[in-house]
Amino acid sequence: MRTLFDSRPHEECGVFAVHAAGADVARLTFFALYALQHRGQESAGIATCRDGVAHVHKGMGLVTQVFKEEHLRPLVGDRAIGHTRYSTTGASHLRNAQPYLLHTIHGPVGVAHNGNLTNATALRQELLAKGVGLTGESDTEVIAQLLAAPTAEREPDWEGRIARFMAVAEGAYALTILTPGALFAVRDPHGFRPLCLGEVRTEHGLGWAAASESSAFVTIGGRFLREVRPGEIVRIDANGITAHQAPVPPRPPSLCVFEYVYFARPDSRFEGQMVHQARQRLGRELAREAPCPEADLVIPVPDSSVAAAIGYARESGLPYNEGLMKNRYIGRTFIAPTDELRKSGVRLKFNAIDQNLAGKRVIMVDDSIVRGNTAGKIVALLREGGAKEVHVRVSSPPVRHPCFMGVDMATYDELIGHRLNVEQIRDHIGADSLAYLSHEGMMRAVTEGIRGADAGHCSACFTGVYPAARRGPPRSLP
Amino acid sequence: MRTLFDSRPHEECGVFAVHAAGADVARLTFFALYALQHRGQESAGIATCRDGVAHVHKGMGLVTQVFKEEHLRPLVGDRAIGHTRYSTTGASHLRNAQPYLLHTIHGPVGVAHNGNLTNATALRQELLAKGVGLTGESDTEVIAQLLAAPTAEREPDWEGRIARFMAVAEGAYALTILTPGALFAVRDPHGFRPLCLGEVRTEHGLGWAAASESSAFVTIGGRFLREVRPGEIVRIDANGITAHQAPVPPRPPSLCVFEYVYFARPDSRFEGQMVHQARQRLGRELAREAPCPEADLVIPVPDSSVAAAIGYARESGLPYNEGLMKNRYIGRTFIAPTDELRKSGVRLKFNAIDQNLAGKRVIMVDDSIVRGNTAGKIVALLREGGAKEVHVRVSSPPVRHPCFMGVDMATYDELIGHRLNVEQIRDHIGADSLAYLSHEGMMRAVTEGIRGADAGHCSACFTGVYPAARRGPPRSLP
Amino acid sequence: MRTLFDSRPHEECGVFAVHAAGADVARLTFFALYALQHRGQESAGIATCRDGVAHVHKGMGLVTQVFKEEHLRPLVGDRAIGHTRYSTTGASHLRNAQPYLLHTIHGPVGVAHNGNLTNATALRQELLAKGVGLTGESDTEVIAQLLAAPTAEREPDWEGRIARFMAVAEGAYALTILTPGALFAVRDPHGFRPLCLGEVRTEHGLGWAAASESSAFVTIGGRFLREVRPGEIVRIDANGITAHQAPVPPRPPSLCVFEYVYFARPDSRFEGQMVHQARQRLGRELAREAPCPEADLVIPVPDSSVAAAIGYARESGLPYNEGLMKNRYIGRTFIAPTDELRKSGVRLKFNAIDQNLAGKRVIMVDDSIVRGNTAGKIVALLREGGAKEVHVRVSSPPVRHPCFMGVDMATYDELIGHRLNVEQIRDHIGADSLAYLSHEGMMRAVTEGIRGADAGHCSACFTGVYPAARRGPPRSLP
Amino acid sequence: MRTLFDSRPHEECGVFAVHAAGADVARLTFFALYALQHRGQESAGIATCRDGVAHVHKGMGLVTQVFKEEHLRPLVGDRAIGHTRYSTTGASHLRNAQPYLLHTIHGPVGVAHNGNLTNATALRQELLAKGVGLTGESDTEVIAQLLAAPTAEREPDWEGRIARFMAVAEGAYALTILTPGALFAVRDPHGFRPLCLGEVRTEHGLGWAAASESSAFVTIGGRFLREVRPGEIVRIDANGITAHQAPVPPRPPSLCVFEYVYFARPDSRFEGQMVHQARQRLGRELAREAPCPEADLVIPVPDSSVAAAIGYARESGLPYNEGLMKNRYIGRTFIAPTDELRKSGVRLKFNAIDQNLAGKRVIMVDDSIVRGNTAGKIVALLREGGAKEVHVRVSSPPVRHPCFMGVDMATYDELIGHRLNVEQIRDHIGADSLAYLSHEGMMRAVTEGIRGADAGHCSACFTGVYPAARRGPPRSLP
Repeated sequence: MRTLFDSRPHEECGVFAVHAAGADVARLTFFALYALQHRGQESAGIATCRDGVAHVHKGMGLVTQVFKEEHLRPLVGDRAIGHTRYSTTGASHLRNAQPYLLHTIHGPVGVAHNGNLTNATALRQELLAKGVGLTGESDTEVIAQLLAAPTAEREPDWEGRIARFMAVAEGAYALTILTPGALFAVRDPHGFRPLCLGEVRTEHGLGWAAASESSAFVTIGGRFLREVRPGEIVRIDANGITAHQAPVPPRPPSLCVFEYVYFARPDSRFEGQMVHQARQRLGRELAREAPCPEADLVIPVPDSSVAAAIGYARESGLPYNEGLMKNRYIGRTFIAPTDELRKSGVRLKFNAIDQNLAGKRVIMVDDSIVRGNTAGKIVALLREGGAKEVHVRVSSPPVRHPCFMGVDMATYDELIGHRLNVEQIRDHIGADSLAYLSHEGMMRAVTEGIRGADAGHCSACFTGVYPAARRGPPRSLP
Repeated sequence: MRTLFDSRPHEECGVFAVHAAGADVARLTFFALYALQHRGQESAGIATCRDGVAHVHKGMGLVTQVFKEEHLRPLVGDRAIGHTRYSTTGASHLRNAQPYLLHTIHGPVGVAHNGNLTNATALRQELLAKGVGLTGESDTEVIAQLLAAPTAEREPDWEGRIARFMAVAEGAYALTILTPGALFAVRDPHGFRPLCLGEVRTEHGLGWAAASESSAFVTIGGRFLREVRPGEIVRIDANGITAHQAPVPPRPPSLCVFEYVYFARPDSRFEGQMVHQARQRLGRELAREAPCPEADLVIPVPDSSVAAAIGYARESGLPYNEGLMKNRYIGRTFIAPTDELRKSGVRLKFNAIDQNLAGKRVIMVDDSIVRGNTAGKIVALLREGGAKEVHVRVSSPPVRHPCFMGVDMATYDELIGHRLNVEQIRDHIGADSLAYLSHEGMMRAVTEGIRGADAGHCSACFTGVYPAARRGPPRSLP
Repeated sequence: MRTLFDSRPHEECGVFAVHAAGADVARLTFFALYALQHRGQESAGIATCRDGVAHVHKGMGLVTQVFKEEHLRPLVGDRAIGHTRYSTTGASHLRNAQPYLLHTIHGPVGVAHNGNLTNATALRQELLAKGVGLTGESDTEVIAQLLAAPTAEREPDWEGRIARFMAVAEGAYALTILTPGALFAVRDPHGFRPLCLGEVRTEHGLGWAAASESSAFVTIGGRFLREVRPGEIVRIDANGITAHQAPVPPRPPSLCVFEYVYFARPDSRFEGQMVHQARQRLGRELAREAPCPEADLVIPVPDSSVAAAIGYARESGLPYNEGLMKNRYIGRTFIAPTDELRKSGVRLKFNAIDQNLAGKRVIMVDDSIVRGNTAGKIVALLREGGAKEVHVRVSSPPVRHPCFMGVDMATYDELIGHRLNVEQIRDHIGADSLAYLSHEGMMRAVTEGIRGADAGHCSACFTGVYPAARRGPPRSLP
Repeated sequence: MRTLFDSRPHEECGVFAVHAAGADVARLTFFALYALQHRGQESAGIATCRDGVAHVHKGMGLVTQVFKEEHLRPLVGDRAIGHTRYSTTGASHLRNAQPYLLHTIHGPVGVAHNGNLTNATALRQELLAKGVGLTGESDTEVIAQLLAAPTAEREPDWEGRIARFMAVAEGAYALTILTPGALFAVRDPHGFRPLCLGEVRTEHGLGWAAASESSAFVTIGGRFLREVRPGEIVRIDANGITAHQAPVPPRPPSLCVFEYVYFARPDSRFEGQMVHQARQRLGRELAREAPCPEADLVIPVPDSSVAAAIGYARESGLPYNEGLMKNRYIGRTFIAPTDELRKSGVRLKFNAIDQNLAGKRVIMVDDSIVRGNTAGKIVALLREGGAKEVHVRVSSPPVRHPCFMGVDMATYDELIGHRLNVEQIRDHIGADSLAYLSHEGMMRAVTEGIRGADAGHCSACFTGVYPAARRGPPRSLP
């Protein structure tokens, strides 16, 4: 079963924005994107605005590959937005790189977007029918062209036009928007994708910023202030931060729980807690639900499972150690592996640390199993390394449903948790035992650390209950 | 005090060689270099030989940046050598990239080199005086030109010419050499730099390989056989591996102990043990020598100190956790940080994981302190993150003496352990307490796991006792 | 006096289109653009269409720099359009490179454009006001977005939509348009910029093509058929060529006379004659109007004045020779000249051939004087080379008025013919005598060779009589 | 019959050197190489020297492609040498690019070379036998390594070492040499390849230069002084120019006559005359020897035959005109032509100017016929263009013998003049008549304009009489 979303790029990305009068905002944005690099390695871009003229540089690759000093120099202005973009098959074109810049009747506007509009096809069709030609396939161009529409009576300004967009858009979007007079940070009414506000102190004084994750502020010497609320439109300009709720119907808060499980940096903060601590608790809950007292050792699948493995080890009282070495030199290789290497596959990414494993009954903690391509190979690697038994413990439930909100798991077919039950998966990956954390356990671990009121989560990939849809997944949209 | 070595590039590198008839040896070498990337990110290269004609491609940057499919295609033959090179100031030129290829009266020869010849200046001068012009500054060209010299009666072949080179060379060298008929793997009589042998099974049958570290074999689906012995000349050809000791005076085995402490991959093996286990024991010894029972938490400075911190935590009974997040997206950035960022410095590399630190008395385990530029900044980061106390424990002794054998710490001036005593360093880095592992403790941890006879180590950077020199460091050489 | 056109790119370009079922149309287009390279060296691009999906590659630089085999490979289909673009200050961005591709409600459309819309600002404003955001500054995007507008009753197809565009567009445009079902070649009702039709015979049979100049057909082994008529819409598809006049008011034919004087290749044909012959007659008329019987020698300013100089020499009976050597290695240099070189300026482009000049009274034939920056320097060069006298003869009248139709001479201020009279110009360039061809002489030379009826020309840059405007130059447009 | 030279690169190049204290010598060299670009388009390079340290940048492609501002910046010093290199099959590697820089016992030395050593293989073998390894295949490295040899009693300085090289070298060499204290310009005792001296006036005062052709001086605002004499060693330093004859046996002066016929720029000067005038006389002699009074028109094959065609037309009294348009946009294309285009071949380079040819009996003047691949295609093009008859007149004799001195015509097999007689060639190219200039006529034309004593020429490619060899061509060398 393939859905209409397959042919469109997944907007699983990092966004950023900063206003800091007098400072080198493009440079600050560069280093912030560097901190958000894990959210997308396909392309990167920065846009600035001065005196009503917008400037942009974007390119394919890591942010360090896309930018040299000569590219930062023309990016003048007191405010900037930036974007780093995930690679999904078939949509790897420079024309889909962001930020997307457009000349409009209201002046230039730049948009950086994280998420997926579930009604993008319909919105796109409406634009085309109105006579607006589109240059690429991305949701971001659709958003920018919607913002370019002429202003009705009751939308005299950018806030009004953004609200108008929010009234017709469905799905997930965390946006940073650049206009001649201000920056905007906007989050969809569900708050599917994260977005937060921070302040940056430069030699020219105080500035304000927005980012997908709070760790971007820390990297550039700033600090986290608060999250952008679901449905909120935040304006950032020389006067600082002003915010209000968009006049759209409120929806249940639905932060993507997969950000806690896997996607976000451990040192980022959502809902008043750090991701690392939530992950430790995921490990703790997993140890309570699925103990394995006869084991000798708890090891993580690096790097995303380290915190959960520490939590599991601590709760279980079993020793924690490393059993796998991960090759740190990430970045696309243009070289195809030999047939032998392709078969083993996982070797280019992981080596076993044999002496830590030899003769041991090992608990391997993994954060999630999506397609099931890797786990089995790692189990085999551990056995070759001498492990006597390998017990796999997963710090989230089986992924059984596609995500339509911006995470790259788009079809039922590709999800091993949809096709096989737990025992079949155990057999498939060759583990001595396999246990997943329950949905209740996961939510208990996540919510325990939350500070503040109305938190809420989307865990549709685990449950099939899609917050945005009345009747199941939105795959039947026109 | 600056020494004559400062103006020359430090040959702190990874080398590789493989013979596998019928296989795509350049591709195997590519992936092996990928596994050795931590030994040098400045440049990379691969050379092959077929029918007496040598081919080479090399370039600046990571191995994944230097090679595309079009570069591998012309690299035909049954054997290849590869090299990945560390960046040291002032010597970052393509002309110093390796392997170094030379047409000689004996046919083409290619050389990949790890280490530093301590009498390179004298050898260079001898070559120049004989009328041999040199194209660059590297030791490797000197080695290749020495091998190009005409053959005397008693050196009728490559083994003879290699032995002749070894008779005049002083210092550290681990070489892979490519000739029309064979590969050679050669290690200096002290065995300063590591070099080992492995086998690789391809669809075309069995092949043999040499590498700076055994993890390179594992990455390409092969396995470790044994180390090249100090002073040994190993020939690899269609008949497999044949080896003999070079007719040079034996020297005390002196494997660089810093490979255990910091430089090598944790999953590599030297002297019968894995580096990860040696590092755990370094942490264990450190916990015994320098306990800190009042602390709440043991954290590593990632990534090189993780094993030692696990060892320390286990021995001390204190909980282990992560307190620092390291930015994974390594690779040169061409963008200069802002002044503010430059001052904070360490932020671009590390963020604190505040909630793990808040209110805690933290033991920060670091593998070594060389220049002292980073440790103080990390201590400050941990305090900002909320740590109540920061106790620094270093799993090696103070580095007090330069290395002339290929590690990038070349002058007394730059070594904080030479300029300050332990209390002064503690004050400099702002720690609540600071303790180093003793030399005895370090050697106990390293030697405990050794399997096999005549091991021996160079720890001159800690002790000032240089194995190769009769009278102190070789800085008075002409 | 600067006009509103200054901030917009001048669309002085070469366009091409070819339909040839089964043939490698992108490759044919590449070589056709190579033949049209003199019409623009800033950027180049090719678009194709197959099964309703459009493909494009474009980039900055010469066509040989923009295209490698890997770029041609994805450009599949039975038809292609191509574009090569002139560089004007301030508009040198990839986003202005052509062809411009757009997804529309009618399917994908690609546009390649030569010329300038004189009401582009107004059309642009109308689009913005309708809510269409624009990504760049080029007229071409405006044209494409106008074609993307929804179709009214009476414009059921592309012909209809093109006619609708022609009804609102003013100024100069020669277009090639790519749609899923056909190619179109379109020329504005004045026929300001040239456009012609040809046929190409490939191993797969007969194909049809359109190009700015007929020499493009010859280069790819095809042949010239006829010119596209002013106001004509020509459809090219599998059935060959079908054409009709757009339902817009006819205008007086106004082919740019500067194409004859300077811009076009000598081997191209307009209005039934080759440019080289027209230029020879320009020289002949010049010799009749402005003889110089006391001179020894006629030399051209290479390359564009060669034909006129030959015509002048033949008519006057004076010997023809070369007196200037032009550096053939055209292409942008990224290196700034030294101050001395900057002052002499013309030396990097021309050297004098001294021995041909020494002691001679030289007639230097130039095709036109626009800004007057170069002529004076060449006169000085000839004197340094030994010329006793230098008599400048210009084979067109003084350029006194800006062009708004696509030639890069956009403001009164920059035109030396507007600021100075002939004697002042003679003094400025340091010639012994200076004479221009009269407007009558120019038109006599051009029209003498015309075959076929309704030819007509725009010579507004010489006369100030703008065919498109009722009341003088269109510089007062909003 | 293939010779040993086939596998070696042909050193048909442009060389340059300049000393100008305080000036930006690398920039001057850049523009000089730009003027020498016709002598080689494969690679380009510049080397400078300051304080005993040499700097170099070189790369593949046109000089404008190889150099950007960032490459000039590090090229500091008061003197520079430069090189531009011709492309011959199989030797197109960066490692063969020049200048070639070498560290020697005498300090750094840089060499730029035009020509071919006929005993390079033997010299190379001697170097290898002495134990000098060689990095590439070029003669230039051989020359540099010979200069690096230790100094005997009687060669205390660079002049001595250069003389020593000249004593063993055979064949053609025009060299510019860079040393820490001076530049040298050196020409072999035959003076096969051209080399001349000039002066350059910069804002910092007077400087001196050497170049393959005098037009390079003019381009950078300097002036020609004199030619370097065969066998002369010219030193250029802060004191200006000092020169002496090398203590080697004098040989008959043998400037390559093909420089006059085809290779050099028309505005360059050799032996007191400009090449353009010599070429006009070649045309004059040709008109006398091979008139064609029934013809209507004389046309050149552009660009190298223009001067000869002018001379022919003037002598014959027939009108001169252009009949072929040459595509000016030179530079490698990476795109292979279609089969149809490949067959026609010449179309991508030339188009016919039909209206000048229609119904005419045309004399097509070509400077030379080497391989015979092009002439026949041009004749066909002229006929298609309407020419009634095509009479080919060649302003040099048939090329019947290979060149071993640096021009790219290396084997007997490839020379149509060796395989066929004149009537057979006429038939092969499809001309109505064909006539070559006689050897006597050519020498008369060339020598008539010579100013100064001992001129002499190599015309071995026409006669088979090789100045350097006692017994025929040097193809039997070991």
